[in-house]
Amino acid sequence: MSAGALGAFDSNGKGFFAGNNLKVNGQRIENRINELARFGRDENGHGYRVAYTKGDLEGRAWFMELMKKAGLDVTIDAGGNIIGKRKGKKPLKPIAFGSHIDMVPDGGNYDGTLGSLSALEVIEVLNENKIVTDHPLEVIIFANEEGGLIGSRAIAGQLTAEGLKQVSQSGLTMAEGIKAIGGDPDNIQSCIRKKGGLHAFLELHIEQGGILEAENLHIGVVEGIVGIMDCEVTVEGVANHAGTTPMKLRQDALLASSKLIIAVNEVINSLPGNQVGTIGKITALPGAYNVVPGHVTMGLEIRDLSADKIEQLFVEIQKRAATIANDSKTKISFKREASEVKPALTDKQLQQKIDASAKALGLKTKFMQSGAGHDSQQMALIAPVAMIFVPSVGGISHSPKEFTKAADMTNGANVLLQTILTIDKE
Amino acid sequence: MSAGALGAFDSNGKGFFAGNNLKVNGQRIENRINELARFGRDENGHGYRVAYTKGDLEGRAWFMELMKKAGLDVTIDAGGNIIGKRKGKKPLKPIAFGSHIDMVPDGGNYDGTLGSLSALEVIEVLNENKIVTDHPLEVIIFANEEGGLIGSRAIAGQLTAEGLKQVSQSGLTMAEGIKAIGGDPDNIQSCIRKKGGLHAFLELHIEQGGILEAENLHIGVVEGIVGIMDCEVTVEGVANHAGTTPMKLRQDALLASSKLIIAVNEVINSLPGNQVGTIGKITALPGAYNVVPGHVTMGLEIRDLSADKIEQLFVEIQKRAATIANDSKTKISFKREASEVKPALTDKQLQQKIDASAKALGLKTKFMQSGAGHDSQQMALIAPVAMIFVPSVGGISHSPKEFTKAADMTNGANVLLQTILTIDKE
Repeated sequence: MSAGALGAFDSNGKGFFAGNNLKVNGQRIENRINELARFGRDENGHGYRVAYTKGDLEGRAWFMELMKKAGLDVTIDAGGNIIGKRKGKKPLKPIAFGSHIDMVPDGGNYDGTLGSLSALEVIEVLNENKIVTDHPLEVIIFANEEGGLIGSRAIAGQLTAEGLKQVSQSGLTMAEGIKAIGGDPDNIQSCIRKKGGLHAFLELHIEQGGILEAENLHIGVVEGIVGIMDCEVTVEGVANHAGTTPMKLRQDALLASSKLIIAVNEVINSLPGNQVGTIGKITALPGAYNVVPGHVTMGLEIRDLSADKIEQLFVEIQKRAATIANDSKTKISFKREASEVKPALTDKQLQQKIDASAKALGLKTKFMQSGAGHDSQQMALIAPVAMIFVPSVGGISHSPKEFTKAADMTNGANVLLQTILTIDKE
Repeated sequence: MSAGALGAFDSNGKGFFAGNNLKVNGQRIENRINELARFGRDENGHGYRVAYTKGDLEGRAWFMELMKKAGLDVTIDAGGNIIGKRKGKKPLKPIAFGSHIDMVPDGGNYDGTLGSLSALEVIEVLNENKIVTDHPLEVIIFANEEGGLIGSRAIAGQLTAEGLKQVSQSGLTMAEGIKAIGGDPDNIQSCIRKKGGLHAFLELHIEQGGILEAENLHIGVVEGIVGIMDCEVTVEGVANHAGTTPMKLRQDALLASSKLIIAVNEVINSLPGNQVGTIGKITALPGAYNVVPGHVTMGLEIRDLSADKIEQLFVEIQKRAATIANDSKTKISFKREASEVKPALTDKQLQQKIDASAKALGLKTKFMQSGAGHDSQQMALIAPVAMIFVPSVGGISHSPKEFTKAADMTNGANVLLQTILTIDKE
């Protein structure tokens, strides 16, 4: 994909542009994506580089070796995050950027790794061009993003003693896992960053959705990371013999649940905007051909950039549920999960700089939300943050089928590089 | 409950009535229901008298002892069925009646046991009144009704070598279980009854539904036992990230399934009659808050007395499914289970005799279908059969809450007794 002519100004003829001809080495990024993918494979070639497991440890060792070769001063903080520092010319706050290299079980090769390897690529390009930025730079590879943003939560001071006791996907507790990767859970406070200590935090990531591809765009400028409300829904009817209970005498919990699933969909679609609502899990008991279901539990999730909108939608869903319960002689109740996540907005000025950098590279952009959670949402608690999205083929993620084209990865890394150079000169 | 005055004619003044004053001893039936309930209890007092287990063996031994005390010639046939014979005055075909005493795990005290103990009660009353019928009588206590009508299937010649290999709820194969209760699985053909060898087979049973109670009736005259079509329904969509996949780009298998569950309900309710249709089980994968479900399997069951109507309803459901699949960009497929059961009609003359006997006792009756399966449906392959239903409180069955009032049990046993005496005199 051609990046178009480079100029000193953005496509509106306004705003500062770094005015250099620096370009990332797309082939190097692609090669390293494939190399990193070798760690934590099963016998079928599927990826299980789950945080704190052998594959994660091996991948981290490989990555730290590359960071050291690129001249970074590499340390592991108390939360297990890998920090690679590069000195700046001036006594300014550091510009930080990075992502994560752990993955979900049977996951894909691009989620997190693209942003991590592109952060390293930025350092390589600066090295090759003998450029020293005014600001110090920090590459941060967060630990256990997929298991609940554990590393970035530690940095933001959000990882509690309770959180450290939770069991991770690896089977280890978070504390045990952090220790296994070289962190110091007993001294977790030592990795907390003070609010305002960073000039900015930037993260390049695959979109994990299908919007950019569907609209034939190159770069997503992320306006924020959605808040998430998870809620367990219980529908109580009466289990009864499916042969002897006439249709009109039934109190069928699954039939009522079906009406609620459709109502959720209608309520979410009733307002303009990008909100999403999902019933992703369901259990109907007793669960036999010949018994009318008496008890159903479901998982309801609502996501949006506005916490108010999430509440508004939830209230409407509860209203619809009350009507359904009444009509179907069932009882429907809602229990909000403690895992609720607040929306995190990115920095508006940084958004503009990403957009300008992309347009100067001849790339088509879209301002959009991130429907998925990211370490940036924790970093937003302590620094101005921004995220750059590149297209995911078919919108598929958390799957071996996850794929982003090499040209799109290169575009994203170039936008990351140019945005860093731009904000370095402020 | 008063049985009203006995007369020589039924309430319409027409039809033969046995014209005796014989009455069952309701208290004895109730006492024996409670005695039998002692076998196969768990520590919480719940019933696990599952076929071929210790509780079943103990219950059967207790029952056979009572049969012997009542003067019956007791044997166990090759299928493990208990047969108690009483001689008649004339060289006629036997009149058989009975039910089963095995139960589902955590089941109730009336399903099967009422019909079994009432059959024994008929013998006791005849003994006490020194009555010898013209026809020989046979009390049949079928083995493992709840596990698939195993004993009656053997008698009807429907128990295959394949069926004998299946594992029963007890953990034993059917063959092992049959051997454990004194049957002879290696010689299973020896228990097959020739078609036409019995004058009639009668079974008294609890309704297991709520119709008689809701309509304040005493006796259900069963017109037939419904056929059952079980079918696995698969809905294939696309699993995707519930945060990053916009509503309009989703191919949500659970949303499509919900529309189908409602469509099944609408189709079943669209025709007059007593047909029932149920989605009793559902699995949605991958089954997480944050993933749009990509794959759903469900269990669809349709029951009716008419096989044609079952087919008609199934065709209509498939039509609705095709529209839903098209609208939701999912694929919906149906796979019929091998366990399909054909409807079994009871004998119309026997129905009339039950109705007349009940009315002569001052009882209110209803002609109705049996939505549940019974040994009578196997017996219908070799003999004219009839079933007598009595009310189930709340329509609850296969549950510790299963209950039938003593007065209703007494009514049912009296109707059984009078019907036997009536058809003996034909």
